[in-house]
Amino acid sequence: MGSSDFTDRLTATAAETEALLERLLDGATMPGETTRPTRLLAAMRHGALGGGKRLRPFLVVECAALFDAPRDGALLTGCALELLHCYSLVHDDLPAMDNDDLRRGHPTVHKKFDDATAILAGDALLTLAFDVMARDEVHADATVRIVLVRALARAAGIGGMAGGQMLDLAAEGRFAPKRTLSETEIVTLQAMKTGALIRFACDAGAMLGQADAQATAAVAHYGAAIGQAFQIADDLLDAEGDSAVLGKAAGKDAAAGKATLVAILGAQESRARLDRLISAADDALVPFGAKADALRAAARFIAQRQS
Amino acid sequence: MGSSDFTDRLTATAAETEALLERLLDGATMPGETTRPTRLLAAMRHGALGGGKRLRPFLVVECAALFDAPRDGALLTGCALELLHCYSLVHDDLPAMDNDDLRRGHPTVHKKFDDATAILAGDALLTLAFDVMARDEVHADATVRIVLVRALARAAGIGGMAGGQMLDLAAEGRFAPKRTLSETEIVTLQAMKTGALIRFACDAGAMLGQADAQATAAVAHYGAAIGQAFQIADDLLDAEGDSAVLGKAAGKDAAAGKATLVAILGAQESRARLDRLISAADDALVPFGAKADALRAAARFIAQRQS
Repeated sequence: MGSSDFTDRLTATAAETEALLERLLDGATMPGETTRPTRLLAAMRHGALGGGKRLRPFLVVECAALFDAPRDGALLTGCALELLHCYSLVHDDLPAMDNDDLRRGHPTVHKKFDDATAILAGDALLTLAFDVMARDEVHADATVRIVLVRALARAAGIGGMAGGQMLDLAAEGRFAPKRTLSETEIVTLQAMKTGALIRFACDAGAMLGQADAQATAAVAHYGAAIGQAFQIADDLLDAEGDSAVLGKAAGKDAAAGKATLVAILGAQESRARLDRLISAADDALVPFGAKADALRAAARFIAQRQS
Repeated sequence: MGSSDFTDRLTATAAETEALLERLLDGATMPGETTRPTRLLAAMRHGALGGGKRLRPFLVVECAALFDAPRDGALLTGCALELLHCYSLVHDDLPAMDNDDLRRGHPTVHKKFDDATAILAGDALLTLAFDVMARDEVHADATVRIVLVRALARAAGIGGMAGGQMLDLAAEGRFAPKRTLSETEIVTLQAMKTGALIRFACDAGAMLGQADAQATAAVAHYGAAIGQAFQIADDLLDAEGDSAVLGKAAGKDAAAGKATLVAILGAQESRARLDRLISAADDALVPFGAKADALRAAARFIAQRQS
């Protein structure tokens, strides 16, 4: 698949995701809800709508397509994951955490509203993610949905994304004198902070498709490889990227003394590792033949993206 | 059931809940988790262990017992609910929210740790609640578990507890000039902020017991009545209670100009309403006969508690 075909496909899925998120975040109450307070809904919408490549939903949809799982359920799963991803951005941007005023060129939720509203909006987005993940439309079989709920919780919780953010704050020297992290520590931190949700995106596709053990393992290998690749590419971008193209300040990691593999290994070795990870991702996809072309292109996109 | 028999029973279930929460919050990783960072785990444990009457788990267990549902699954459901309740306390105590330094005589999570750690601990407790709710041990039938996950999310999210906290902050006049709330607005606010989780506790018992429509409705009526009663009793305690017995400052609501029914209706009419709610709770329990004695005692306990 050529890179422009890939971009078209990514954009089309992002538009479908956006439309579905818009419906999930409208003012209508669901059974069991009393009312949706206007200010909180507006803050949730600000945090979740109108932005991003929606890469995680794309990965869910394309991995599910390997097994001919219904697209609607995969899109809804992608939305649950994206709601969860967006909650983490809202909370990470808070003054007490990374203290960012801008995201994608717009004021962050706590800047547009206030800290209390941003905390609640993040909480409510996280909660809505599990609501959506459990809906009947995700998959006809309740057992599949339960497995998805549990996997999403493990990817997001103390042993996954939230734990990774804790390790990242600790790595900045907030709670004890700062020390240099080992390569193993950095890999673990990144596997939790950003890797866990990317791995879940791919695993979810296999779950929705009720893939056999061998195919499930193949998809998991792909997810693990692109998850690591994503983070190395991110760190390289920060170290070498053009702030204008990036839409945010480059060199922020180095300025903050952040623990990245690029800082330890250097840019050249990091690029070599990135290449090996993309090869590993390709290898994992061999059993799926041409059906996996979009996922092959996604791996390249992740490694080569400029923003 | 006499009040000392009731207290013994409440205490025994609280001890079982505590033991189970202790196991859920140990250092061992679950499948899908990488590692549990020490500082985050310690903050989660500080926020969830060692305190409280564990009234919500008690309600789950006793409502499930009406239908002879297995006790182990009800206790685990109660723990999921309690983890969620505790996350809400950790976040509500934050400086950006209600800014409380003490809870049950101990420093709140952000005082003992810091704001960032408290935000993450709350996030991870909320996430763990859904992990636990989805576990096989909750109920043999995955459909029952999915219904529980969804109901928990609706009770906790924008249309439930989180939305109620938003309305409560707005009622303090944070975002617009303060105005006096109507009785209807206060009832809605309280039904969301504190009522939703209490109603879920009771509803969950009926779900675990796969109760028929009539019994489900009866339990829901009971839950709605004691949910309202809980809040009126809380407001009366704050207005009239003894700070020494309460273990926290009384009169805090009036000082903060908080929207309570007691402020609008006065103490006498509030007590009359409380009595009517307890009668309604009793009426709802008639079909269950002697099996519901602990729930009858719970309603009285809620109305008469001194702390």
